[in-house]
Amino acid sequence: MRIAIDAMGGDYAPHETVKGAALASKEFEEDSDIILIGDKDAIRYRLAHDRISSPDMEIIHAPDLIQMHESPAKAIKNKPNSSISIGTKLQKSGEIDAFVSAGNTGVVYASALMSLKRIRGVRRPTIGAYLPAGNKGTTIFDVGANPNCLPLHLVQFGVMGSIYVEYIFGWKNPSVGLLNIGEEASKGNEMAVKSFQLLSENLPNFYGNVEGKDLLTGKVEVVVCDGFVGNILIKFAESIYDLLKSKTILHMRNRPFAKLGALLMLPAIKRLEKDLDYQEYGGVPLLGVNGV
Amino acid sequence: MRIAIDAMGGDYAPHETVKGAALASKEFEEDSDIILIGDKDAIRYRLAHDRISSPDMEIIHAPDLIQMHESPAKAIKNKPNSSISIGTKLQKSGEIDAFVSAGNTGVVYASALMSLKRIRGVRRPTIGAYLPAGNKGTTIFDVGANPNCLPLHLVQFGVMGSIYVEYIFGWKNPSVGLLNIGEEASKGNEMAVKSFQLLSENLPNFYGNVEGKDLLTGKVEVVVCDGFVGNILIKFAESIYDLLKSKTILHMRNRPFAKLGALLMLPAIKRLEKDLDYQEYGGVPLLGVNGV
Repeated sequence: MRIAIDAMGGDYAPHETVKGAALASKEFEEDSDIILIGDKDAIRYRLAHDRISSPDMEIIHAPDLIQMHESPAKAIKNKPNSSISIGTKLQKSGEIDAFVSAGNTGVVYASALMSLKRIRGVRRPTIGAYLPAGNKGTTIFDVGANPNCLPLHLVQFGVMGSIYVEYIFGWKNPSVGLLNIGEEASKGNEMAVKSFQLLSENLPNFYGNVEGKDLLTGKVEVVVCDGFVGNILIKFAESIYDLLKSKTILHMRNRPFAKLGALLMLPAIKRLEKDLDYQEYGGVPLLGVNGV
Repeated sequence: MRIAIDAMGGDYAPHETVKGAALASKEFEEDSDIILIGDKDAIRYRLAHDRISSPDMEIIHAPDLIQMHESPAKAIKNKPNSSISIGTKLQKSGEIDAFVSAGNTGVVYASALMSLKRIRGVRRPTIGAYLPAGNKGTTIFDVGANPNCLPLHLVQFGVMGSIYVEYIFGWKNPSVGLLNIGEEASKGNEMAVKSFQLLSENLPNFYGNVEGKDLLTGKVEVVVCDGFVGNILIKFAESIYDLLKSKTILHMRNRPFAKLGALLMLPAIKRLEKDLDYQEYGGVPLLGVNGV
């Protein structure tokens, strides 16, 4: 497999992306080739500066740089040679088997939609996010690509999400919950009530409504909601990890015994951190476009 | 002041409500009288059983019992002598100055609306919830009373919320943020875009959009959103505390040094718990009805 990485996307790019690509390249060995897409000079400088030895990594030059807050429409129009545009086009033409980016989500979404088009029948491609919960976590669709949704979109998120978690995690017959504010079919806003109805009629593995408190318990494998709710929720969840860290440090200040205690607790804390740190769970899938 | 407590509402009622009322009664001494509304026999049994000495506490008998999951319309119609119905009626007639309930939120809301009516001009009374954030937390309106909202409702939540936090916390000129999925005015779903516009035009202390990640940082004192998003968010937030506790215990199992460490960290952990435990922040206000 030929897997291309957007070397210019995400925080601390291309520093971290190049380091990550080199690690992946070693881990995959002969199974897959890692290709870097981005500013050739910047990537080469990084490879040399960090003394990364990776003779296998091909570099594809992409001179246009897209910032994290650029509007997707403008970025795609004015910067045809960005790493994201080139990546999605190479996926379309089959020169690469998959494209991974930590860059501007809106641009990735729009560019993938334009280059790869949608899978036949899919109205809206969707972006999901994984929330850890013991052995089986919950993947939420959508988390921001579609702030305005119709009930039909949620049904399709449920179908795509089920297939995704079944393939990726190997969970047979995953169940799909509708994010709502109560268990009964009559609960929620108008959109939720209509979605419950449509999901019941069309999704054999529809579980019913789930609430905010059910997201971290692994009650269902897939949760569907519109991208407005999903995005607010996921950004809130991510912020908690940072808050916990800073609060813990704050409360240990001037408490030498607490510091000693923390040292003794370190293995347990590390495990807890691993469970909670959203960065551990990395990438989110973009489902529904005709490509990877 | 005469403050009435719904003795039958909430988990472990009337056990915990009676104990709490007795504590409040002692703390307030001559300033306020605490009145218990509920099943007289059950309350008396509790007072005797726990040997609570509180000669000052008046009991008002309310024979009808409302369960946590009853539909508001039915409960109010079929159970006119519930503690909630009696409490809101006594507030209306002026026999009590305030009524507090931890019972079925839907019934409290509907009953308060029926008995007390709305403050003139207010379209929708709202229920808020406080999220801790360092010195200044954020209070979110609405968290479930209004799953379907119009932009005008959000403007009114902002007005009522500002007055509330100014009076309760003493924060002058609190700012109001709109919960959204990006900072720019154009971000969000249709409802959010329209709300941004209306808030900008009508609320002098409107801050602009805030995201999920801003809720625990104290960026603004008041956040407005519809009750669908707010309820999902608040239930999710509450569940995190429980998750952290169970995960921490899990990771310390078979780690004796970690347990010793936890013991040494106890004061810091207790402080962290206090910061995070939603039960520490207790009641939520019901704003916009013509009563307390």
